[in-house]
Amino acid sequence: MSRLASLLPTTFGQTIDAWLAEDIPSFDYGGYVVGDDIKIATLVTWNFEEGAEIIPNDRKVQVAVVQGPARLILMGERLALNILARCSGVASRARRLRNIADSCGFQGIVAGTRKTTPGFRLIEKYGMQVGGADTHRMDLSSMVMLKDNHIWATGSITKAVEQARMVAGFSTKIEVECQSEAEAMEAIDAGADIVMLDNFKPDELELAAANIKASCLGAKRQVPIEASGGITEDNAAEYMVPSIDIISFGSMTQSVPHVDFSLKIAH
Amino acid sequence: MSRLASLLPTTFGQTIDAWLAEDIPSFDYGGYVVGDDIKIATLVTWNFEEGAEIIPNDRKVQVAVVQGPARLILMGERLALNILARCSGVASRARRLRNIADSCGFQGIVAGTRKTTPGFRLIEKYGMQVGGADTHRMDLSSMVMLKDNHIWATGSITKAVEQARMVAGFSTKIEVECQSEAEAMEAIDAGADIVMLDNFKPDELELAAANIKASCLGAKRQVPIEASGGITEDNAAEYMVPSIDIISFGSMTQSVPHVDFSLKIAH
Amino acid sequence: MSRLASLLPTTFGQTIDAWLAEDIPSFDYGGYVVGDDIKIATLVTWNFEEGAEIIPNDRKVQVAVVQGPARLILMGERLALNILARCSGVASRARRLRNIADSCGFQGIVAGTRKTTPGFRLIEKYGMQVGGADTHRMDLSSMVMLKDNHIWATGSITKAVEQARMVAGFSTKIEVECQSEAEAMEAIDAGADIVMLDNFKPDELELAAANIKASCLGAKRQVPIEASGGITEDNAAEYMVPSIDIISFGSMTQSVPHVDFSLKIAH
Amino acid sequence: MSRLASLLPTTFGQTIDAWLAEDIPSFDYGGYVVGDDIKIATLVTWNFEEGAEIIPNDRKVQVAVVQGPARLILMGERLALNILARCSGVASRARRLRNIADSCGFQGIVAGTRKTTPGFRLIEKYGMQVGGADTHRMDLSSMVMLKDNHIWATGSITKAVEQARMVAGFSTKIEVECQSEAEAMEAIDAGADIVMLDNFKPDELELAAANIKASCLGAKRQVPIEASGGITEDNAAEYMVPSIDIISFGSMTQSVPHVDFSLKIAH
Amino acid sequence: MSRLASLLPTTFGQTIDAWLAEDIPSFDYGGYVVGDDIKIATLVTWNFEEGAEIIPNDRKVQVAVVQGPARLILMGERLALNILARCSGVASRARRLRNIADSCGFQGIVAGTRKTTPGFRLIEKYGMQVGGADTHRMDLSSMVMLKDNHIWATGSITKAVEQARMVAGFSTKIEVECQSEAEAMEAIDAGADIVMLDNFKPDELELAAANIKASCLGAKRQVPIEASGGITEDNAAEYMVPSIDIISFGSMTQSVPHVDFSLKIAH
Amino acid sequence: MSRLASLLPTTFGQTIDAWLAEDIPSFDYGGYVVGDDIKIATLVTWNFEEGAEIIPNDRKVQVAVVQGPARLILMGERLALNILARCSGVASRARRLRNIADSCGFQGIVAGTRKTTPGFRLIEKYGMQVGGADTHRMDLSSMVMLKDNHIWATGSITKAVEQARMVAGFSTKIEVECQSEAEAMEAIDAGADIVMLDNFKPDELELAAANIKASCLGAKRQVPIEASGGITEDNAAEYMVPSIDIISFGSMTQSVPHVDFSLKIAH
Repeated sequence: MSRLASLLPTTFGQTIDAWLAEDIPSFDYGGYVVGDDIKIATLVTWNFEEGAEIIPNDRKVQVAVVQGPARLILMGERLALNILARCSGVASRARRLRNIADSCGFQGIVAGTRKTTPGFRLIEKYGMQVGGADTHRMDLSSMVMLKDNHIWATGSITKAVEQARMVAGFSTKIEVECQSEAEAMEAIDAGADIVMLDNFKPDELELAAANIKASCLGAKRQVPIEASGGITEDNAAEYMVPSIDIISFGSMTQSVPHVDFSLKIAH
Repeated sequence: MSRLASLLPTTFGQTIDAWLAEDIPSFDYGGYVVGDDIKIATLVTWNFEEGAEIIPNDRKVQVAVVQGPARLILMGERLALNILARCSGVASRARRLRNIADSCGFQGIVAGTRKTTPGFRLIEKYGMQVGGADTHRMDLSSMVMLKDNHIWATGSITKAVEQARMVAGFSTKIEVECQSEAEAMEAIDAGADIVMLDNFKPDELELAAANIKASCLGAKRQVPIEASGGITEDNAAEYMVPSIDIISFGSMTQSVPHVDFSLKIAH
Repeated sequence: MSRLASLLPTTFGQTIDAWLAEDIPSFDYGGYVVGDDIKIATLVTWNFEEGAEIIPNDRKVQVAVVQGPARLILMGERLALNILARCSGVASRARRLRNIADSCGFQGIVAGTRKTTPGFRLIEKYGMQVGGADTHRMDLSSMVMLKDNHIWATGSITKAVEQARMVAGFSTKIEVECQSEAEAMEAIDAGADIVMLDNFKPDELELAAANIKASCLGAKRQVPIEASGGITEDNAAEYMVPSIDIISFGSMTQSVPHVDFSLKIAH
Repeated sequence: MSRLASLLPTTFGQTIDAWLAEDIPSFDYGGYVVGDDIKIATLVTWNFEEGAEIIPNDRKVQVAVVQGPARLILMGERLALNILARCSGVASRARRLRNIADSCGFQGIVAGTRKTTPGFRLIEKYGMQVGGADTHRMDLSSMVMLKDNHIWATGSITKAVEQARMVAGFSTKIEVECQSEAEAMEAIDAGADIVMLDNFKPDELELAAANIKASCLGAKRQVPIEASGGITEDNAAEYMVPSIDIISFGSMTQSVPHVDFSLKIAH
Repeated sequence: MSRLASLLPTTFGQTIDAWLAEDIPSFDYGGYVVGDDIKIATLVTWNFEEGAEIIPNDRKVQVAVVQGPARLILMGERLALNILARCSGVASRARRLRNIADSCGFQGIVAGTRKTTPGFRLIEKYGMQVGGADTHRMDLSSMVMLKDNHIWATGSITKAVEQARMVAGFSTKIEVECQSEAEAMEAIDAGADIVMLDNFKPDELELAAANIKASCLGAKRQVPIEASGGITEDNAAEYMVPSIDIISFGSMTQSVPHVDFSLKIAH
Repeated sequence: MSRLASLLPTTFGQTIDAWLAEDIPSFDYGGYVVGDDIKIATLVTWNFEEGAEIIPNDRKVQVAVVQGPARLILMGERLALNILARCSGVASRARRLRNIADSCGFQGIVAGTRKTTPGFRLIEKYGMQVGGADTHRMDLSSMVMLKDNHIWATGSITKAVEQARMVAGFSTKIEVECQSEAEAMEAIDAGADIVMLDNFKPDELELAAANIKASCLGAKRQVPIEASGGITEDNAAEYMVPSIDIISFGSMTQSVPHVDFSLKIAH
């Protein structure tokens, strides 16, 4: 088992079972056609480390060997390929975005978002891990993000942060989505743990972030600044400026090219 | 409710609940910040028919209006957008593929596959319906597809079809994936309901399909021919030849560009 | 494992767990009384092939040997016997109906229906398989059956079939329940894959089916004709006429005599 | 709601949902054909009291009226009829057995057993209630029944009862299945709450039960005697002797004729 | 496995899984830090019998040894300790109450109630078993308890018992909560299996119970008398009078001191 | 609905259903006795704000009024009281601990732990919120806590923090449990977000915390210091020293006295 696989929760087996059930609601006719007599366990041997870059040349690359009864292998074939194709797509995208950052000399964090496929988030966040990206918050319970609607509902950024702090406790971070430098300063003063500059153009972003950093220079608490909104592989480099600590990409899990895997049985 | 929504099973509400639970495993801190006092139901009014083509111009298009408590709307916001973004992506792809067929004068069926996101298949198949494509089989239980491994396990196409017919019954179709014209003819003789020509090049496909059709000309039973394997939006037109009845596209649910939706609260 | 058992979905173990939970909601007092010390696996060895006919003589017939801890065997005893008694009852009924067909020289299909016990359908359909009968459609998703109410709601058989075809796709068959020869002809013209003559008397059935077959004689597509409604072991032979392709029996899973099994522990 | 329906647990709605899911694993094509526009609730009005005897004459009897959207009614039709057919079958059998008892002047209890359909026990036990029979124990947790295997495992009836009493507590009854009058007397002395005379012939049963009653005449504790094993509608009267307090029938839920219900939509 | 563990239902493993899922909703970061390479099973060896009294001296007492991969042990550590701390707390309380009874010469039953932690009842009832107490009824289905509200709803104790008997059957006991000696006598005449004297002061309790016993002296049926309401470790001895058969303690599962366990890994 | 109730996840209704199912595995006999005819909704009106201190005088205090069918109220009575008794116990304990802090002039955070009842954590953490305490981390996924075993497994605090940071991302905090001032300093240098001084005696704690604070005086990042281990209501004041930012109490959810609630129906 790869070390990253140690991250997976104990319920992961049940998730796999539910996905198999989606594919076989009643009878497995193909299973009958194949049959199985021999009682041998199904084993998978991976030929690469988790996260290793696989460069396909003109020949197909054998990434793993599966041994076991033909019936069970065929039963899980489509599910396994569907997981691999999507997870590797996300991991590859994450890796490309991280590589862009590295080639820019950007030392900040490259992160995903919650724009994941419903029910499949764990795999997509896992893909981010494999590709060397930060998963950003897993769900609404693991970090608080205060957006315009939360702020409007409470009256001000300050009040929204105060309300959030009353329940979120010391172990949960609070991030505030800001539309301006002034909002970001208010959020920092109110005690936000992170501020996000939302949908800024690259040059505006650089300026705002630098100003915020300058204002906080002597403070005891340095608040990381996140850039988000409309950043993709194509324009990422423009946003990778020194004062930005985190860049998050919805595109890490949206419109992601899949990676093509297939299963060949050696007779 | 749109007519297509009548397709959804009674369990769909439970699926939505499970997806919400993925996003809120313990506390909803943002919900506390917003609070809610007024007991009003959450209503959604759609401004377009299901399947209508929405052409974004320079302004954003309002596709629906949601009314209800801010807390509940924000709680479901990300999930709803994640569903819409992906489902509309599949529907748009399906529509483009159908449009290619129509402009080629191809009268056959444009279909998806089982290459869907685990746990999210129902939505992706629903997107195919919205886009005017055929869903192909839903799962392993609803149609039998005999592939090379099934055939190898039983010894021949004929034996594999016989085995499958013993259990699949009259209500379930049997399709055979064939690597050659000869295999297709054996499958038809064995009683296959559909034959698939797998990974043929366009010109080989046309020839093989025409030959098969010619051979069956006088037969009581006309077996539809499906083409599959490596067909995408870019090369689809080449495969849309007269003797082909069905073309299936893994790309209908793989590497699909999402459609961007956002929620704006009117204060 | 018998080959037919290869049909069972991966969720079958969970179904068994749920049924055990029905029988032990809190404590298993009997389990405490018996206790268990020895860690041995529970094994079942069947003395007969699945589907073999067992003719009880004056002595009881030993159908299987179970080895394992007394506590676990007793815990599952009632559930196992309840499954066996009902499944074997259905299989025996299916076999008797198939035997009637064979002795009549009827070459059509003998099928069950969806008139199964809620939550227990998989086992009852499995019993049909064991007894040599066709399972008919497993559920509402695996074949479309248009009945009088669907037809009334859309206005005509033709419209109902058209609506169904729009969503059901090429992989799913459409059957139409018909009250007359004329309805059957309309259904065939509309593209139905199967027509059912519902609640016809034997002589009317024979006449109608023969007429329909005659009308379609030169057609490219031969549509199978199903007879259904009020057909039981007692009157089945009357309905087994040459032009009928399928006879379905609600009685295959209703009012079914159980087969008596018991468990004896050898001390 | 009938008063008996007050017995149903809060989970009953979830059970119904699970049964609907068995019938619609993916799409409800028939639902699409019917469609639904009007938002009206589904209501059921029963024309008879729960448990009322319905005597079908030459015309069909209307037992209930269902109002609601055609799509929802058709979606639940088969499930509702499958429940009704089986539950009414059990209730009718229970009523007939109770009637036999009444006409014999038998004042004891007529009870069912745990020989129910897996997953469907609640409905079958409910049918017993409707038919005026005793449900006997619901499961292994609600009463202890010590059989030959439990006794063999502990060494004697006395030891088995002692072990059971240690864990079962005062709120849970303990019954002992006995093969002889001597075993029954040992069970009573050991503190059994009920003794069952298992598979006795009618005359032996009468004698044994009378002897046991005589022996306990002066005792502070009168232990009810149950007769069980091979008792059916046909031979029940022979077992309905004065010293027997309870007769249990596996046949109350095995080989039960169903009651035929159908749904007709009034256009 | 201890003999008491034989009481646990087959679903217990699933309950453990659900509790682990409560603690790991998405990623197990600590698991990644620890990693695991060696495939060894996790084994627990207990150093004491279930129910043995462990007297902590100045050193910690080693109650069990766990062997297995560090990752898995740490993953389950908190859950295991949380279960042990609470279950042992209940068992210890139960044992202390039983000891008080023994030292008073009270020969009646010391029992718990349904005042348990939601979702955790099985463990708390198991703790009662370990401590030598009676679990009292497990749930609303396993014994009927008629309280003032049930009696008020039906009009009288007699009517309430009659209604209950109609559905509860012979295998389920009926207990009536009584506010006076007169109510208890009415309950006994109506056929109650147990009467409870609710919230009596010790001297009133002794008198009422003695009177009831005297009244029933010659009767064929001796109805046990339970005392309940406000009885704790501190005042239990006052209620342990000869005519009382059962004393139940809500305090067996409320305000229970936990027992402190910790896990130490030997490096 | 109180504002704090807005924290509860969408799955909370399902949790309540599961707890009701624990109490009614099969039939609700008491529900039958009570019956219900009138269709009225069940409403609860609270007489106090969430978190308000209720001082019981010699009379009982009415905390809420419930209106609805007697059957449904009685069905949920025990569950509702069991939840209230425990949740209010935790809230009261949390409030008392917070009050001790306030009266000491301690401005740090008073927090709970994960030492909660399995399956019931959400309610116990909710009780902490109601009582004005910090919930500390909800589960293993929402904050990383590195303990001696994690450190031993990786070789050093520095390595353990590095490993954790690779997967935990910027949104998840990392806390390190330290046995000494030196360990705390290493943890801070390695990038820990919080350090915990584990099981220190009060005077040692004060000294160590002051030293750590002094060392970090000029640093850009101020790391909060948590004290934990063996701190209870009785000794809490001794640990409430100025350099400590957070004190966590296992005793907030262990050995917690319940608050006594009862339901009285007004006839």
